[in-house]
Amino acid sequence: MNSCRSRSRNGAGRPRRPRRVSPARLDVEVSTVATAEGTDPAEGTAEEAAEGVPWTRKRTGRRPGTTLSRVAILQAAQSRFAAHGYAGASIRAIAQDAGVDAALVHHFFVSKEKLFAASIHDALNPESVVEAVLAGGSRVGGTGQRLMRAFIELWEGERTSRQMRGILRSAVSHEAAARMMREFLTQEVLMPIAAATGRTQPEVRASLAASQLIGLAMARYVLGVQPLASLSHDELVAYVGPTFQRYLTGTLPSPAQG
Amino acid sequence: MNSCRSRSRNGAGRPRRPRRVSPARLDVEVSTVATAEGTDPAEGTAEEAAEGVPWTRKRTGRRPGTTLSRVAILQAAQSRFAAHGYAGASIRAIAQDAGVDAALVHHFFVSKEKLFAASIHDALNPESVVEAVLAGGSRVGGTGQRLMRAFIELWEGERTSRQMRGILRSAVSHEAAARMMREFLTQEVLMPIAAATGRTQPEVRASLAASQLIGLAMARYVLGVQPLASLSHDELVAYVGPTFQRYLTGTLPSPAQG
Repeated sequence: MNSCRSRSRNGAGRPRRPRRVSPARLDVEVSTVATAEGTDPAEGTAEEAAEGVPWTRKRTGRRPGTTLSRVAILQAAQSRFAAHGYAGASIRAIAQDAGVDAALVHHFFVSKEKLFAASIHDALNPESVVEAVLAGGSRVGGTGQRLMRAFIELWEGERTSRQMRGILRSAVSHEAAARMMREFLTQEVLMPIAAATGRTQPEVRASLAASQLIGLAMARYVLGVQPLASLSHDELVAYVGPTFQRYLTGTLPSPAQG
Repeated sequence: MNSCRSRSRNGAGRPRRPRRVSPARLDVEVSTVATAEGTDPAEGTAEEAAEGVPWTRKRTGRRPGTTLSRVAILQAAQSRFAAHGYAGASIRAIAQDAGVDAALVHHFFVSKEKLFAASIHDALNPESVVEAVLAGGSRVGGTGQRLMRAFIELWEGERTSRQMRGILRSAVSHEAAARMMREFLTQEVLMPIAAATGRTQPEVRASLAASQLIGLAMARYVLGVQPLASLSHDELVAYVGPTFQRYLTGTLPSPAQG
């Protein structure tokens, strides 16, 4: 990782403490992180200038080194969280993998919980998932089937499958990770979809869809329940798509009639 | 626990090794265990006789002490698995909690994996669950709704809720526990129900229902996804019952049409 500019050397390059942000919802946290990205985490030292690090030439605007460090931290975090779970991945180890000082991780992401949230957001890109699911127009059929396909893509896509397993395993064993997963799945993915359909009780619909998504993840990818784990993508879409369609857009019966 | 008859003392009361059984499906294991229950794990000692333990009076047939020991082991195992998960519950600790020698645990249950299976079976009583779900006749409506009610009873019943959480957490983190949970849920609960409906592809139906059951367990009881976690029992039955009904008895669309 060529992000050594940000590494703390004998204390001189120690990043400033980040401004305090109140604990808040994931989307707020992510925008905070995005803002922090543009700030300068460390003053350049004479030692660094002497090394001729290229980005010392331009001292204003977003620094390539800063962006590279942030990307390197996110990648290291995703890898660590996937391999060791939330509890087993320390900020120190993530910083080491990324080739930066642990203080820089705190500067960018404030806490391990927020780093976990940012690494989920970065890996899974919820906006593009929502866009793909709503592609056919929010009120027409096929929303549930597209959600099923988007889910398969996340769990079986080369770039995201390890992340997904890491997130789920972490969420089961650690409360902070569970909270992050819950917020991400409902607030960033399913609520925008349920709201776009314009039906009653979008929160209930989003949480019902969440239960089937989480169950599929567990049964197919973690527990390996057969024959579900071997069904083709088309079979999954045909069998489970209608469940999502009903949860998101169907008439929810009155409990009195249930 | 007053099951001291079976405790090994200075080697004299050491149980005989159980007859070897091949690793097999859960129902086979459970019947093996049931057979082993009737055997005599330890010869009585003079010391025990001198203590006036009541069951030394009758020396034939099933011994009350043996049954008590087995029950004590199962209760200790359920408690340990629930509190510490599969990996964190040792045979030694379970034996200690039950007031018996670890060798007696091996005599009754052969291995930790089989003890886990037996403790699930004992706690959850799959036959009674299947019976309750099929109570209205296998082909009539309401099967999905009754499955939903049976599931709520298991997860929120005083006697079983801790077991259910322990099983699920163990299954996520440990392969042997995952295998046991998978086998239990599909082979002992859902396959008999799906088969009783007489529809095509009962295995697929059972595994689809399993995915929604596991997802509800995770979302409502482990992750606390709202508002799902706060829905009333009647709401759950009304909203999710039809999903089970469709998976178990509905027409599964051809993937080509999906």
